[in-house]
Amino acid sequence: MNVIETMMQHRSIRKYSDKPVEASLLNAILEAGVRASTTGNMQVYSIVVTTSKELKSTLAPAHFNQPMVTQAPVLLTFCADFNRFNKWCRQRNAEPGYDNFLSFITAAIDALLVAQNVCLAAESKGLGICYLGTTTYNAQKIIEILKLPMGVVPVTTITLGYPAEVPELTDRLPLEAVVHYETYKDYSPNDINQLYAEKEQMEVYQQFVKDNNKQTLAQVFTDVRYKKTDNEHFSAALLNVLKNQGFM
Amino acid sequence: MNVIETMMQHRSIRKYSDKPVEASLLNAILEAGVRASTTGNMQVYSIVVTTSKELKSTLAPAHFNQPMVTQAPVLLTFCADFNRFNKWCRQRNAEPGYDNFLSFITAAIDALLVAQNVCLAAESKGLGICYLGTTTYNAQKIIEILKLPMGVVPVTTITLGYPAEVPELTDRLPLEAVVHYETYKDYSPNDINQLYAEKEQMEVYQQFVKDNNKQTLAQVFTDVRYKKTDNEHFSAALLNVLKNQGFM
Repeated sequence: MNVIETMMQHRSIRKYSDKPVEASLLNAILEAGVRASTTGNMQVYSIVVTTSKELKSTLAPAHFNQPMVTQAPVLLTFCADFNRFNKWCRQRNAEPGYDNFLSFITAAIDALLVAQNVCLAAESKGLGICYLGTTTYNAQKIIEILKLPMGVVPVTTITLGYPAEVPELTDRLPLEAVVHYETYKDYSPNDINQLYAEKEQMEVYQQFVKDNNKQTLAQVFTDVRYKKTDNEHFSAALLNVLKNQGFM
Repeated sequence: MNVIETMMQHRSIRKYSDKPVEASLLNAILEAGVRASTTGNMQVYSIVVTTSKELKSTLAPAHFNQPMVTQAPVLLTFCADFNRFNKWCRQRNAEPGYDNFLSFITAAIDALLVAQNVCLAAESKGLGICYLGTTTYNAQKIIEILKLPMGVVPVTTITLGYPAEVPELTDRLPLEAVVHYETYKDYSPNDINQLYAEKEQMEVYQQFVKDNNKQTLAQVFTDVRYKKTDNEHFSAALLNVLKNQGFM
């Protein structure tokens, strides 16, 4: 499948067959992944490949026990990683200056570009993936379980395996909702109404609002799925992780 | 070209032909881009497409006047964006709780996955790209020039256009340098020596060390390219941007 076709067919896969991912295939996917652009060709990221049932079970609570964490044959945890680079510098009579927030962001960008390459490479080979946003929520637990040293912070995780489901493609806002020409054009109340109209009229979301006993779809996000109190709790935790891992 | 071939052919393009990028092609690339995974399907990102010569020149200093910024026909600035989502919430009787660090990271992840999709889609259509790491260094300037409102932070920029050069593929560390199985295996001094040996022996890097009047390649990074004092300066600036844009 070509690149754009692969992207247009993307859906998150949450149910996997028992078929393992062949080592040679995983290797080819990772080799393609690391061709992604990287700041100054420093490659300040690491990928932790977890296939052990026991380790996946230990990781599951950090990912709020989403069933695909244990069900998928492979978990890939993508980490911002200055540990390897710092060690290299120190062995080469060079004093690294990467114990700061900018360096974390640089390394996180590196890790995320590789992650998306890996996902597309996997999908082009018939595998399915799902990103786990929980990685940044519970980074400290993941650090302990995966034994990540100073200078390493997990930024995202994907589940990987052969799909046992073909879910519907998910909707997207019209392209004009997210693209601005020349400079940013802020949204009028009428723009917002128009850009979200199609989404709000979808049967699946209207049911979602009812199921959650809310008046609007937006309230399902603010009051149920991504609540201020949770966001504040996990913000403090993540900032603490950055400090502990040597990035603040 | 298929997905893995496209990735294996990736090189950053810094010289572009004058040929403009057709609007229909750019549109197809962006449509593929936004199929990337997004947290809770919130699409908390925006893409600013800049083609005006004047605006590109105004942006150039924020990108340290790298020549491809004005030479490329298109600049795409990928932004973490909760502004649109917040406005929608407020118009729907929902109180958004996204004025915190976790939400910035969530939105930055969204933006970066789209960015990498856009790059691969573009490359598969014969276009070239180059990421500009300077976006997070000089985010405040970019915010002013592109008129980004509260809730919006630029995280990366790419130059886009038809290539006028075919540079060599850049080297990568051996895959085992960046991949860990089950848990993270920290590096012994001998591991570091082995993993960096091939890179350090490359003619291009040996010349690079000489040109910079340094003893080791690592020193070129720590003393010339990515210095502690610069990193600390830009860390403070970026944290200030997050505060000003409503994410701290």
